[in-house]
Amino acid sequence: PKIVSLPGDGIGPEVTAAAVQVLREVAPDVTIEEHLIGGVAFDTHGDPFPQPTRDALKDADAVLLGTVGGAQDSAWNLLPRHQRPESGLLALRKALGCYANLRPVRVQPGLEHLSPLKPELARGVDILIVRELLGGVYFDGDRKIDGDTAYNTMRYTTAEVERVAKVAFWAAEQRKGRVTSVDKANVLEVSELWRRDVTALRDRDYRGIHLNHEYVDSVAMLIVSDPSRYDVIVTENLFGDILSDLAAVIPGSLGLMPSASLGDGAGLFEPIHGSAPDIAGKGVANPAAAIMSAGMLLRHGLKRPDAANQIDRAVALALRAQPTRDLGGTADTQTFTRAVLNALE
Amino acid sequence: PKIVSLPGDGIGPEVTAAAVQVLREVAPDVTIEEHLIGGVAFDTHGDPFPQPTRDALKDADAVLLGTVGGAQDSAWNLLPRHQRPESGLLALRKALGCYANLRPVRVQPGLEHLSPLKPELARGVDILIVRELLGGVYFDGDRKIDGDTAYNTMRYTTAEVERVAKVAFWAAEQRKGRVTSVDKANVLEVSELWRRDVTALRDRDYRGIHLNHEYVDSVAMLIVSDPSRYDVIVTENLFGDILSDLAAVIPGSLGLMPSASLGDGAGLFEPIHGSAPDIAGKGVANPAAAIMSAGMLLRHGLKRPDAANQIDRAVALALRAQPTRDLGGTADTQTFTRAVLNALE
Ligand SMILES: CC(C)[C@H](C(=O)O)[C@@H](O)C(=O)O
Ligand SMILES: CC(C)[C@H](C(=O)O)[C@@H](O)C(=O)O
Repeated sequence: PKIVSLPGDGIGPEVTAAAVQVLREVAPDVTIEEHLIGGVAFDTHGDPFPQPTRDALKDADAVLLGTVGGAQDSAWNLLPRHQRPESGLLALRKALGCYANLRPVRVQPGLEHLSPLKPELARGVDILIVRELLGGVYFDGDRKIDGDTAYNTMRYTTAEVERVAKVAFWAAEQRKGRVTSVDKANVLEVSELWRRDVTALRDRDYRGIHLNHEYVDSVAMLIVSDPSRYDVIVTENLFGDILSDLAAVIPGSLGLMPSASLGDGAGLFEPIHGSAPDIAGKGVANPAAAIMSAGMLLRHGLKRPDAANQIDRAVALALRAQPTRDLGGTADTQTFTRAVLNALE
Repeated sequence: PKIVSLPGDGIGPEVTAAAVQVLREVAPDVTIEEHLIGGVAFDTHGDPFPQPTRDALKDADAVLLGTVGGAQDSAWNLLPRHQRPESGLLALRKALGCYANLRPVRVQPGLEHLSPLKPELARGVDILIVRELLGGVYFDGDRKIDGDTAYNTMRYTTAEVERVAKVAFWAAEQRKGRVTSVDKANVLEVSELWRRDVTALRDRDYRGIHLNHEYVDSVAMLIVSDPSRYDVIVTENLFGDILSDLAAVIPGSLGLMPSASLGDGAGLFEPIHGSAPDIAGKGVANPAAAIMSAGMLLRHGLKRPDAANQIDRAVALALRAQPTRDLGGTADTQTFTRAVLNALE
């Protein structure tokens, strides 16, 4: 199998290098081909998602992504929108047809004290957020800034709703069998369609799943005040962007949060933390999320659950043995990565 | 001065009655006229914002609102959208021209333990969220559900951005002088306009204010993991809906959260909690937020800061003397209200 690795900007190259080391260890037969994305791709090719990268994806079995984007005051942010690093990321998602972004939010036993929540609220939290990733206000329809007026169109079709809802129902079947669909159906027509179609799909094909519907503002509250109520959450792109980042703070470090984006073809696997330009190049970034993303790549992309479990166990051990600075420890990127490699054996 | 009171649905009548008792005590000269809104208005007039209510607003100096809407499985939710209770609320906001929703989020000293956050994070939190309330995806532009496709339009104009930003800058001048403007400018054209216009207004008229810009997903994280970084937050309607509810959990009880909506004419003052159909009619709802909303009415609506301060002090005392059930105490609605009335004298 062939994996395309896209380290990207900021700490992306450091954490991706760590993940690649671990991947080579547990799956020595895979080919890993590195390409450019984001700001560094713009600097080299004048395009944040350049043709050589596009071409490399054609026969890829999975894509390992680092992080994309610069600091707030980066020169990249003054470029026209389609040349900015983030546009490279959005174009990559679209090119791969990755419509379902899976973000597990799990508080590791013994690490409850890292959570900003009270330990009794953080304990045992285990949520899977399934975010629709190719529709809504991100891509479709009219969008324009025209003098003193600007608009964007939020749009969904039944086909788009159903394909991501299927992923959520399928995931819930391997978990506790409960899905919460999040919308703003008391205000938005788009949410009315969303709610109608998710409900119809459940009634038709997933009778065993317990489905409920909640408003996005209410979920923003409850995910903080009572996170254990949730098993699988499925929602549209913009709500998912906000809620998945919100939920990601519960375990206490973004350095612990991997993600998988699945769809028509090769899946995309990336840590959810940003490019952290302030610590880039210093060799201190926590690579756990990138390594766990490689684990998700093995599980969902290459269907190698044993190798994936091996990585998850090794990361859990390394987190205890060699915690990085964001976790209150002292390990740098390489020390932590070595601890993972040791724990694999 | 004339106040229109709109108790609405669920626990609205109980908590509004408490607020009216307190208002009569500190401002015996005001006239208070009661009218229907929401589900009860639909039941009586077939319209959640009926003509008699509209008429009563014409010469009102301020509006005191309870809560609107039924349970998830309420028959009201099966009505066409424009007849549902929530539509009455949206129409009321529009009729009053209330474009700026102010939600103070303050952790009362000594009540840190109520917060879902660790006490060291909750302590001292004092944020004012200014939410744009008449634009964005809520009202303007095309919206439709058409077979297998639905869309809504998110839209803003410079005039809409500037008028709400002015309220935020003005509020920051009475506080710590810092404003965080929240958008998704890396994806949305609407946010690009928002950011441009907020920045231009600051540069032109509010040089003394420290303004920064953050993305909505990042704010969702930081408001939980580091809430003390914020002074005033200003944002568009949908982001404000989500973030203000999210921030509202920090003090630990929605029963403590008032709000004011200001604009062209009479202001609208309401607790942010919902209609809580499960406890409606039992006389146990916490009326603190409704009473504090009456305080905001006196401060912002009638320009009587002394009376407003009187209420705030009395509520703080009553919260210690007679905490309600949601706060771990035993006081019912009337007991708490009497404690406030006693503390006034
Ligand atoms: C960088 C940005 C375009 C992106 C998004 O909003 O999808 C990011 O926030 C994410 O969640 O991956
Ligand atoms: C009930 C609903 C329409 C309303 C809104 O979204 O504005 C509510 O959530 C609020 O925040 O007041």
